[in-house]
Amino acid sequence: MTKKNAFYAQSGGVTAVINATACGVLETARKHKKTIAKVYAGRNGIIGALTEDLIDTSKESARDIAALRYTPAGAFGSCRYKLKGLEQNRREYERLIEVFAAHNIGYFFYNGGGDSADTCLKVSQLSETLGYPIQAIHVPKTVDNDLPITDNCPGFGSVAKYIAVSTLEATFDVASMAKTSTKVFVLEVMGRHAGWIAAAGALASSKDRDLPIVILFPEVAFDRDKFLAKVDGMVKKYGYCSVVVSEGVKGADGKFLSDQGLRDAFGHAQLGGVAPVVASIVKEGLGLKYHWGVADYLQRAARHIASKTDVDQAYAMGKAAVSLAVQGHNSVMPTIDRVSSNPYRWKVGMTPLSKVANVEKMMPASFISPDGFGITGKCRTYLEPLIKGEDYPPYKNGLPQYVRLKNAGVAKKLKGAHQLK
Amino acid sequence: MTKKNAFYAQSGGVTAVINATACGVLETARKHKKTIAKVYAGRNGIIGALTEDLIDTSKESARDIAALRYTPAGAFGSCRYKLKGLEQNRREYERLIEVFAAHNIGYFFYNGGGDSADTCLKVSQLSETLGYPIQAIHVPKTVDNDLPITDNCPGFGSVAKYIAVSTLEATFDVASMAKTSTKVFVLEVMGRHAGWIAAAGALASSKDRDLPIVILFPEVAFDRDKFLAKVDGMVKKYGYCSVVVSEGVKGADGKFLSDQGLRDAFGHAQLGGVAPVVASIVKEGLGLKYHWGVADYLQRAARHIASKTDVDQAYAMGKAAVSLAVQGHNSVMPTIDRVSSNPYRWKVGMTPLSKVANVEKMMPASFISPDGFGITGKCRTYLEPLIKGEDYPPYKNGLPQYVRLKNAGVAKKLKGAHQLK
Repeated sequence: MTKKNAFYAQSGGVTAVINATACGVLETARKHKKTIAKVYAGRNGIIGALTEDLIDTSKESARDIAALRYTPAGAFGSCRYKLKGLEQNRREYERLIEVFAAHNIGYFFYNGGGDSADTCLKVSQLSETLGYPIQAIHVPKTVDNDLPITDNCPGFGSVAKYIAVSTLEATFDVASMAKTSTKVFVLEVMGRHAGWIAAAGALASSKDRDLPIVILFPEVAFDRDKFLAKVDGMVKKYGYCSVVVSEGVKGADGKFLSDQGLRDAFGHAQLGGVAPVVASIVKEGLGLKYHWGVADYLQRAARHIASKTDVDQAYAMGKAAVSLAVQGHNSVMPTIDRVSSNPYRWKVGMTPLSKVANVEKMMPASFISPDGFGITGKCRTYLEPLIKGEDYPPYKNGLPQYVRLKNAGVAKKLKGAHQLK
Repeated sequence: MTKKNAFYAQSGGVTAVINATACGVLETARKHKKTIAKVYAGRNGIIGALTEDLIDTSKESARDIAALRYTPAGAFGSCRYKLKGLEQNRREYERLIEVFAAHNIGYFFYNGGGDSADTCLKVSQLSETLGYPIQAIHVPKTVDNDLPITDNCPGFGSVAKYIAVSTLEATFDVASMAKTSTKVFVLEVMGRHAGWIAAAGALASSKDRDLPIVILFPEVAFDRDKFLAKVDGMVKKYGYCSVVVSEGVKGADGKFLSDQGLRDAFGHAQLGGVAPVVASIVKEGLGLKYHWGVADYLQRAARHIASKTDVDQAYAMGKAAVSLAVQGHNSVMPTIDRVSSNPYRWKVGMTPLSKVANVEKMMPASFISPDGFGITGKCRTYLEPLIKGEDYPPYKNGLPQYVRLKNAGVAKKLKGAHQLK
């Protein structure tokens, strides 16, 4: 095997542990210097490759690379930039390969979700055709937990833990206030297509700790009357309740519940979330006092309360990606394979990218309780191990000591700029 | 000193550490059994006293009491119920004293903010007049940090830490996404009258870690053009920015910025927060892509990321309250007295309640930077020690093991029910 450089890029929405994966990639590559010379990272993801804006990770100290394990978000920058199909935009793929060739890049590690798996596969295929074969390895990452084959996706476990912990804490709060004040707390969480994250809110309640929590899944069409009856029942029984609502909840008409055509007093459109809508429905329908919160970026950036299982798996995926490349694999993705749930055991597996690209894993119907407002035992068994363990970052003066890399650029070798489509 | 029972009640909005204060009260009282027989707690705060709904804390194990130190929210229930002035509602104060007398209660520990300090003072005064003297000790608690005399209030440090950590993490997130996607992240935080909590967002940026963060204080009238110029400047310089906005921000007209008279497509009023309003202003004024979050209860219930300084002080206030009572003090509040900022040193002090009741401590003007969008060095020196140190709760299966008490009731001794006003 000839010695080549590698290219690593972060894609799409970042997570609390995508840098742990980067850490796994970089630390493992440094152990294979006979095969992998340098790892270049894309500044702002794949855009960095297209515009030949590469970061030389060899300039970073071992200490800073190690600190990536406990630093959230994307240390090299990410992007939302989907390469079109080969037919529509072959030139863009060719450009990628030109940049890779110019910098002697033979390994492409693409850290993202379904779209980047697809890009990864196409780059590998086209590079072969163009006579500059690249080993393309997709490294799984997505808080949405919607990649197939792998049992779960790095990034999801930490969001799930954040939502479970936050729901538990806020539910204790509303329980304290319910006698004279707030009786319903509504928390909006991510998950436009699948209810994985919302489902995690249900973990706050357990056999030892019965708490009234109502989940609104995007998989279940919102039914105002059924929802109000559910909340009313909970409040009558417990005196209060929490509602965890996925941002992607839709009504029977297929429209997002958050899309209420909100206008301010001047008639300007306002982009509201779904939490205030649900809170207003509770207020109007039951006359109960409420509070609502929207976790937004807080949930996916919350490295301070990351799941140790998730951090370990994120790192393991980065490490495995490099190992697979060194072993000569191409067009594959390392996976997390569950061996057993109780005790939880998992191992690293591998799947061809053709099985991953353009397949979305939804919540199975068997994970949602018959009334549509909770999770089943099967779902709990699946979720519980993923939030297990704490992995605290180091602190200084009360704040986590997250690292910011030098991100030194690599001199350009190609003439002319590339126009992004 | 004759042996009497004590009464403890939690008042107003709960915090991540109000139970740490309860823990301090209960553990210390158990060490003074010769003076304090039992501690009764009010179920749902002062309402529990008015309705003679008392909890016998002697039924709780030492282990469960110890667990209060790391359990958020109000373990006995709190309430929003302000006793009116003596002239308007003398009967209600008399009722309190009747209940105290019936249960041989000689010590009243009231754990709350400004309103409860006032109630505490009046109970002490009236009890003297009525010939059943009660030693009333107010125990400070409020996330709003607005009590006078004491350097800071238990509850505030942990919210401040949560907001500083969350702002840091979300700012790392938006920095990663800014090249192609979100450029401005808006986080709404508590603080209707004072900007203490919003100010904590500014701690995410420091000398070692320069981050673009804009604070919107309730003390500074919102000026749309100045705000847009500030955000525009930040985004031009850094490529992105975070905005931390206090729920209480008002326009020059004195109206809450959150009060936009929002209507849905059917003309129904919607109660929105201020974060979506600010986000819409950014979108409309600068055309920048944004995300927004509303921390709401999450911020004040977040025991998982409590400040150790805050937990220690909350406990110390509970402990001091009992010590003061045992020493024979009346109508006082223990305080946190800052000895030095660097290194941070503090001690427990004491102040007469007459100096606390009905006084609100606002942010000094010298704590807000000249442009109105940040904090001064003086403010930083004040805030930094308050978020220092971590004090993690124990976990089981990925979730904090917060305690729920038995909360066994005490048999009623009075005839007839009390009608709450």
